[in-house]
Amino acid sequence: MVSVGTELLLGQIANTNARFLAQCLAELGIDSYYQQVVGDNRVRLAEALRLALARSDLVITTGGLGPTEDDLTKETVAEVLGLELVSDPATAERIRGLLCAQRSRVAESAVAKQSLVLEGAEVFPNPVGTAPGLGVRAGGRVVVLLPGPPAELEAVVREHVVPWLERLLAAGGVWPASTRTGPRNFLCSRVVKVCGLGEPAVEEALGDLVRSANPTVAPLVTTGETHVRVTAAAGSKEEAGRLAGEMAELVASRLEPHVFGFDDETLPSACGKLLREGGLTLALAESLTGGLVGHLLTEVPGASDYFERGVVVYSNRSKTELCGVPDELLKAHGAVSEPVASAMARGIRERSGTDLGLALTGIAGPTGGTSTKPVGLVYIALAGPGGVRCERYVFAGGRSVVKLRAAQRALTLLWERLRLGVDTPTPEVARDGVSGGPAGPEGHHRG
Amino acid sequence: MVSVGTELLLGQIANTNARFLAQCLAELGIDSYYQQVVGDNRVRLAEALRLALARSDLVITTGGLGPTEDDLTKETVAEVLGLELVSDPATAERIRGLLCAQRSRVAESAVAKQSLVLEGAEVFPNPVGTAPGLGVRAGGRVVVLLPGPPAELEAVVREHVVPWLERLLAAGGVWPASTRTGPRNFLCSRVVKVCGLGEPAVEEALGDLVRSANPTVAPLVTTGETHVRVTAAAGSKEEAGRLAGEMAELVASRLEPHVFGFDDETLPSACGKLLREGGLTLALAESLTGGLVGHLLTEVPGASDYFERGVVVYSNRSKTELCGVPDELLKAHGAVSEPVASAMARGIRERSGTDLGLALTGIAGPTGGTSTKPVGLVYIALAGPGGVRCERYVFAGGRSVVKLRAAQRALTLLWERLRLGVDTPTPEVARDGVSGGPAGPEGHHRG
Repeated sequence: MVSVGTELLLGQIANTNARFLAQCLAELGIDSYYQQVVGDNRVRLAEALRLALARSDLVITTGGLGPTEDDLTKETVAEVLGLELVSDPATAERIRGLLCAQRSRVAESAVAKQSLVLEGAEVFPNPVGTAPGLGVRAGGRVVVLLPGPPAELEAVVREHVVPWLERLLAAGGVWPASTRTGPRNFLCSRVVKVCGLGEPAVEEALGDLVRSANPTVAPLVTTGETHVRVTAAAGSKEEAGRLAGEMAELVASRLEPHVFGFDDETLPSACGKLLREGGLTLALAESLTGGLVGHLLTEVPGASDYFERGVVVYSNRSKTELCGVPDELLKAHGAVSEPVASAMARGIRERSGTDLGLALTGIAGPTGGTSTKPVGLVYIALAGPGGVRCERYVFAGGRSVVKLRAAQRALTLLWERLRLGVDTPTPEVARDGVSGGPAGPEGHHRG
Repeated sequence: MVSVGTELLLGQIANTNARFLAQCLAELGIDSYYQQVVGDNRVRLAEALRLALARSDLVITTGGLGPTEDDLTKETVAEVLGLELVSDPATAERIRGLLCAQRSRVAESAVAKQSLVLEGAEVFPNPVGTAPGLGVRAGGRVVVLLPGPPAELEAVVREHVVPWLERLLAAGGVWPASTRTGPRNFLCSRVVKVCGLGEPAVEEALGDLVRSANPTVAPLVTTGETHVRVTAAAGSKEEAGRLAGEMAELVASRLEPHVFGFDDETLPSACGKLLREGGLTLALAESLTGGLVGHLLTEVPGASDYFERGVVVYSNRSKTELCGVPDELLKAHGAVSEPVASAMARGIRERSGTDLGLALTGIAGPTGGTSTKPVGLVYIALAGPGGVRCERYVFAGGRSVVKLRAAQRALTLLWERLRLGVDTPTPEVARDGVSGGPAGPEGHHRG
């Protein structure tokens, strides 16, 4: 893969195209060994292309197909492969149509440059932009040129390049000068998602599985969750899928009961599934998170089936007016305290008439902390038919991180309660400063 | 830059380290010409290192410093440079201390591997992980080895590598075999941020500035905002900063009155600044956005100075109970309508006793749309002392995108109102289906 663009060398953008293409190649069973990045410079681009052609059967370039003088990928590929550039009337027509639809000015010189294609190339029309992708076979190699804007690149690859490469691979005999050393290798990845269990505990539970060679098993910690990625390699797409699926099941069995989902499932979608299955409704009272928990829950289609309402009670007055938190409680314990969090959860549950009430209060920082109530101190309370339970945490990190960790932890508590059954008795044992989950939540939530 | 890691070649992660390092190099005035990515493979890594050393004065590797057999960057650099690996007792001590603090098991073989350093190397302690960074000078080149996890890499670079490289550059004579062809080039970037103005209008306002060679001026569209990046190159850091600052001012003057901030300023922070300056308070009533607007506003430190409360009125009942929206209005017009949005804004303002009430209602999708009320239909109403104004939009995109565009647009309306003054009379002219800003909002909000 050869990515072209000075903006990559200046760090103005991350090379997300390389990641997307690498995933596509893995799914196609094409081994990817090298990525290069060069700027909009003809000499260095030509050097990178010659190196890539010397060591790879397939070379994919990204970027440098635009209308300006800086865009010189097509011209440089033509020079390196010894091919001519010829005008493609269909492409010119399509570009003119797109510019008219966008009510943009049609600059004929730009249309002329962007509708030049390598002689003999397959033209991959760009459904969302002007520059088409190109595919060309020369000297026992296949070269694919792709536009740089990610939305355009992804559309061209999905619609045209992947099917075209699949046809080439199926036809066989495409790469007479092949550098390939082994059989074609298809990869399939699955992700097992876990919450409420730290990385050391996950690694311990996985045991010898993390040393498996195929499929590989790799835990990855994200905010408040651990994702275990299983990647299988095999001689066919189906076999890779089967191997990955079996290993994902094995991984999940080792991590039960903490597995909330697989692949694209999220903690909010897992909560939503359990709420819907149980015919339960939920109301929220958020303080420090400012609406983040509600936002995350409503990212899931159909959330209105179980999410009744939320209140963002940022001021003390709103805590009293919307959750019925007694003024004396706020005065005696402060807004960031276990009694207030519990009262918020009980109050929002009662006033909304929902089965569950989830409440958060805390100090997001960077200011507002004291020696007894530091920045990052958060109380999360969940009220249900079995009572209210409140937990205390001290999260490290900046304001955004504290908010996100608090929201993730609230969703984890909700999911765990839903998994165990909401009627489970939860006596009000937790008190400020001494409460906490069995594993001592504070110790698990370092920055 | 040589990034090492099979996970990069499989597309499991994006190469964000390369972006971060590229930004650091630009700020240091070090030209960056080439990036390479290879997997955890000794032969290909050695090949990449030899190529990098042949063409660059400074080679930075990322990844492959971990404790497992797959991690072989140090070993391969030692082989290519002809250096020995020696044990560093201080590093071993630090790693043991860190593992104990984390209550992790201390595997002595892992400690031994990670505390090996290149002979004569500068050791850059890792403040957040086990593997230190290393800096070594050999054969007229400088090679820096960095750990792969982004948090570790960034901490090591900020604390140790940038100051070390600055000292080397200041000392001079470091690179006797230099490949450098011109004078040292410092880059400085500034960003001018605009809302409520589409990309074509921004480009038209910028005119000839976008063809400026130094500083360069490049507009970039993000969700609901346009950012204009100004990048200046000069022989000193100060001169680059001065050039970029002057051009940023010129760009801003062309885009007035739509400029809400520079660099790290955000639309929520710009709204917060105007609210605080005006001594004004705000309450929110969100339906489709589920709390996202409140979340964005409370990302700003000190938001409690002006953000009094929010309600997430997802159900019709909650719209009535928390915003006083009459049942008849909901029945007659539906929850997604101009009269309901306006009633929500008026209701939350009155009940909260705030100066401003901002409300959103809409259909986030993917289901729930009809021919007259399609998915993406959103009403945003802002109530203030001068009255209430409601705007109608149809946003393209999936559920998350519709939510984000709606939230961004609500913040834009808030910022524009605050900029003009909240007392500006805003007669209730907008009606369902015919309202809209002067530029016809619907046309501006394609996917």
